[in-house]
Amino acid sequence: MLQCGYAVVFGSRDPQASGLLPKGAEVLTHREAAKRSPIVFLAVHREHYSFLNDLTDVLVERVLVDVSNNLKLNQYPESNAEYLAQLVPGAKVVKAFNTVSAWALQSGTLDASKQVFVCGDDSKSKQMVMDISRSIGLSPLDQGSLLAAKEVESYPLQLFPMWRMPIYIALGLTVFLFIYCVITIVIFTHVNDGQDVSFRIAISIPNKVFPIVSLMLLALVYLPGIIAAILQLSRGTKYSQFPEWLDRWMLCRKQLGLVALAYAFLHAIYTLVIPIRYYVRWRTNSFIISQINNNKTSPFETVSAWRTDSYIALGILGFFFYVLLGITSLPSVSNAVNWREFRFVQSKLGYLTLVLCTGHALIFGWNKFLKASQYKWYLPPPYMISLVIPCIVLVIKLILITPCLDKAITRIRQGWERNSKSPKTAQYENGETTESKVMV
Amino acid sequence: MLQCGYAVVFGSRDPQASGLLPKGAEVLTHREAAKRSPIVFLAVHREHYSFLNDLTDVLVERVLVDVSNNLKLNQYPESNAEYLAQLVPGAKVVKAFNTVSAWALQSGTLDASKQVFVCGDDSKSKQMVMDISRSIGLSPLDQGSLLAAKEVESYPLQLFPMWRMPIYIALGLTVFLFIYCVITIVIFTHVNDGQDVSFRIAISIPNKVFPIVSLMLLALVYLPGIIAAILQLSRGTKYSQFPEWLDRWMLCRKQLGLVALAYAFLHAIYTLVIPIRYYVRWRTNSFIISQINNNKTSPFETVSAWRTDSYIALGILGFFFYVLLGITSLPSVSNAVNWREFRFVQSKLGYLTLVLCTGHALIFGWNKFLKASQYKWYLPPPYMISLVIPCIVLVIKLILITPCLDKAITRIRQGWERNSKSPKTAQYENGETTESKVMV
Amino acid sequence: MLQCGYAVVFGSRDPQASGLLPKGAEVLTHREAAKRSPIVFLAVHREHYSFLNDLTDVLVERVLVDVSNNLKLNQYPESNAEYLAQLVPGAKVVKAFNTVSAWALQSGTLDASKQVFVCGDDSKSKQMVMDISRSIGLSPLDQGSLLAAKEVESYPLQLFPMWRMPIYIALGLTVFLFIYCVITIVIFTHVNDGQDVSFRIAISIPNKVFPIVSLMLLALVYLPGIIAAILQLSRGTKYSQFPEWLDRWMLCRKQLGLVALAYAFLHAIYTLVIPIRYYVRWRTNSFIISQINNNKTSPFETVSAWRTDSYIALGILGFFFYVLLGITSLPSVSNAVNWREFRFVQSKLGYLTLVLCTGHALIFGWNKFLKASQYKWYLPPPYMISLVIPCIVLVIKLILITPCLDKAITRIRQGWERNSKSPKTAQYENGETTESKVMV
Repeated sequence: MLQCGYAVVFGSRDPQASGLLPKGAEVLTHREAAKRSPIVFLAVHREHYSFLNDLTDVLVERVLVDVSNNLKLNQYPESNAEYLAQLVPGAKVVKAFNTVSAWALQSGTLDASKQVFVCGDDSKSKQMVMDISRSIGLSPLDQGSLLAAKEVESYPLQLFPMWRMPIYIALGLTVFLFIYCVITIVIFTHVNDGQDVSFRIAISIPNKVFPIVSLMLLALVYLPGIIAAILQLSRGTKYSQFPEWLDRWMLCRKQLGLVALAYAFLHAIYTLVIPIRYYVRWRTNSFIISQINNNKTSPFETVSAWRTDSYIALGILGFFFYVLLGITSLPSVSNAVNWREFRFVQSKLGYLTLVLCTGHALIFGWNKFLKASQYKWYLPPPYMISLVIPCIVLVIKLILITPCLDKAITRIRQGWERNSKSPKTAQYENGETTESKVMV
Repeated sequence: MLQCGYAVVFGSRDPQASGLLPKGAEVLTHREAAKRSPIVFLAVHREHYSFLNDLTDVLVERVLVDVSNNLKLNQYPESNAEYLAQLVPGAKVVKAFNTVSAWALQSGTLDASKQVFVCGDDSKSKQMVMDISRSIGLSPLDQGSLLAAKEVESYPLQLFPMWRMPIYIALGLTVFLFIYCVITIVIFTHVNDGQDVSFRIAISIPNKVFPIVSLMLLALVYLPGIIAAILQLSRGTKYSQFPEWLDRWMLCRKQLGLVALAYAFLHAIYTLVIPIRYYVRWRTNSFIISQINNNKTSPFETVSAWRTDSYIALGILGFFFYVLLGITSLPSVSNAVNWREFRFVQSKLGYLTLVLCTGHALIFGWNKFLKASQYKWYLPPPYMISLVIPCIVLVIKLILITPCLDKAITRIRQGWERNSKSPKTAQYENGETTESKVMV
Repeated sequence: MLQCGYAVVFGSRDPQASGLLPKGAEVLTHREAAKRSPIVFLAVHREHYSFLNDLTDVLVERVLVDVSNNLKLNQYPESNAEYLAQLVPGAKVVKAFNTVSAWALQSGTLDASKQVFVCGDDSKSKQMVMDISRSIGLSPLDQGSLLAAKEVESYPLQLFPMWRMPIYIALGLTVFLFIYCVITIVIFTHVNDGQDVSFRIAISIPNKVFPIVSLMLLALVYLPGIIAAILQLSRGTKYSQFPEWLDRWMLCRKQLGLVALAYAFLHAIYTLVIPIRYYVRWRTNSFIISQINNNKTSPFETVSAWRTDSYIALGILGFFFYVLLGITSLPSVSNAVNWREFRFVQSKLGYLTLVLCTGHALIFGWNKFLKASQYKWYLPPPYMISLVIPCIVLVIKLILITPCLDKAITRIRQGWERNSKSPKTAQYENGETTESKVMV
């Protein structure tokens, strides 16, 4: 602030003893400092606000900026800013700057969030604080009255709230499938053949679990859109709210997709290391030696060559589009595209990815589902589990994009309603397309 | 807007029947709402603008914000905003907010574009609309008079206009080379040896096509810069415009480079899966078995080891710098570097990438171009095609960076002109370095 | 500026001869143009500022915007803007726009930095220039008085200042380890066995050097944090400054981490190409053939399978989190998370990455450190060098997170001081948590 031409005065209980202050700043007693400053930044913990009791007289009509944060969520019944407003009734309390990290200020605000959430009951004071934050290179964002302080104070204490559900689902599926694979592979082999294949826990089994979870999560990204389309079709209007669970599901689709991409990335690398694994090299060697000892040669099968090359190629192309989707999810990239382009990538390329990955799994499976040897203890091989949701999603989507249904959905999404008295009137009476007016 | 302290009034034909409105908003008839609002947001489709005919008297001197979008480009002869201005001559029409998606508003504007293009003939009204958009956390950008509305309205309907040319070029090359490879590999083998190697279409052939297209596109990124330098050298000045095709080519270099990176990425993965392919494993096994049966051993050739390891290493390093170039092309990364750093990465590291990748292809080719067996039906092997443009670019670049030519280009780019009367005067008379003045 | 509604006048020595001007702009003589413009943009090189000597009378009270850049750092003793202020004492000089590239203006400011650093002694003039830059879609940032012009002018001439130290360290380590490996592998083998394994320089040796450098750099990212914690513990306060080298080290941790990631990326690809290398395929074939000729079979060792699969799996997981850390370092991603989330990723996930990668190296080494054959010329195998710093960091970190020490550090970081007279007073007397006041 000094750099930007503001005169800054520090208030301290013991002005002589204060160190570490920047050049050009004066240090005074609390009372003196408050007297001289139209805007007062309060940078102490809430526990020490009580020292302001002696200063209420000089703080009258002052803009009092609360920058405090708590150590945990819901530590106090009311927000710090509201508590401050009760404590110093004459001052105009503005909550601001609590979301800006020291790192953001130090590194010149290119690397860290520069959004300053501002709220307060007095709009002139709020404007003054917003002007200051703008002039020091931050982006103020008006959040409304001091009632919003609670939310503004909870923001820096959050830990990836949107990511929780997708990560829990992914971890749940991972644990379930891991145990499933350990049972059908390690324990089954141990019980039936007496062989110890426990080393498969390190790479083989994760490399079965990761692609399955990835494909299921990718299908779960597109399932809510399909449910929404069916709901809109059956209701015949877009102007009624979705059930809450569907809304929440739709809001975390991006996170679901990125977790799915992470699993696909792991699957890709786990697959690429196959040939350098000791077990695989040993098996190859043993196979060749046994062939020679038995004087056998395996003839070349064109069908096998086609099948393996096809599912590998589909997998690579699927992964390629997966990564493309991930890149366009980066905030700076999605910022640079318009809505039509964003939808094209996330919807058209997204479905292409789902088709490619489902095809990859289907050709990988081939006719294995017909072989009894694959059903260990009557359990289906795990890759079959992964195919259920994607196939359902793709089949319903295929039905929904038939011309007649597609046209109906498009009409509904453009505002048409089945049950309205007159279609023309409806369009600018119900809902978001109504004329709206602002009085400043 | 309610959250930011604006008083919002909705206008509806049937104020009683309106649902889904936020708390704190009033619903009135159109006339009442228009009377009370200095700024009116019109959120209906253009087809229904006619209802404003009854309101022209109350809309006089009102700021009328047109947020509408059409369903397709050039649907109407004039822009919606200009049409609106004709319809309600007394109102001050401002075009704004049509580029902001519901997603951007819902997700708090960190994830989606927050640019608001604003245009209008009355600068005070424009300023009011820009202030509103700034206070609700969006970034207004003045686009000039209402004449710009056409362009502002076409923006959200565009689908990657800058990407079309690069993608068409890439797809054209891909199709051509794919057919070329199918002919020289699959059909040639079938005709000559009667063997069916059609399975190579899945992986082997794409893995020949991708690197070739990638290298050609990468060379096409640097070719226009070289043509520009030659033009500037021969003209002796930088103050004359390039032909239009060169300008357009130079503007899509970033997209060309990123498409090239996508192909390189595919080439990398297609190469890494080689050892897990059925065909490759079968061939390895057969080779070993045949060696044993014939009691032969192939001695270790140091030259082969050097050659293969070199081209693999060059390929990896080339890919590494390719990826680095891609990362610095991300908007948020290129935002964080200054012009000198950006040029260093895109030019110096770019040429390094081109040199590494060309070297990769040259050493891969080695002395194959001398062997007649490589020329099937007198057609050169495809990798030779890929080397033509890169080699031309690198040779000319090498000539251009010889001290004497480099000095001449640098002087021209700093403003020197060969044919000007007096070099000193020229510098601040012709062109962009002239003193410019602004009258506010 | 014309597009945004400003009236623009160009000043030229020869108004008739000026070409390449946009539509709507007028061209006058210097004197005429200066007379008509309250704000004058000076867009000539510093060498030609002398022509302003004739115009000092008309430039009185004009805002004179210096947009110039020099060709190299410290070319002149004072900044161009300060020199201009001496030359035209009556004008109000503002330094601005020198950091904005032509590319940023041409491409609509989404792709390149749109920050405009503004400095000047007259705050009203500065405000006018900031308003202009804001209205043309750029982000002005007040940098203070004209004294800051030196820094503002040096900004576009910088070349990755924060990256130098990390890159020098990485290159130094790379060169040292490369020579170390060449000696212990190529030269040692040549001297002892008379064999030429020089081809290992292309892939094998880099693939030893890259992971070692990567792991050492990653450990160097976390070492300064540990030193800082020890310093704070021993001093019993956070309110005393760290030594300068530690501060500088902590500021380049992000760059160190990203260079480490680059090395890890190279290691990953160099590892994945192993099976397609000629040498590896030849060795495998020879091994099988020799086994057959000697009528031997190597039995399957479960311990080897576990060991190799484990270190591969740990390596993949480590690389996965490495990449995750890299992605969250992208400016647009770190902008979108709050401080707690950023710290969670960079600290918790960062240590997880370090643990995984150290484990990867430890299990890779296994019991090799016990074998005398690994110590060529009494030199330890290179992977052992890589483990020193990571193990030290992890052991100290383990000690620091024991409950008693962790509690002490947390208390210190929340403002507690061991040596203060009264802990309560201390908290708002010394340092950053003191109440601060601003006088506008």
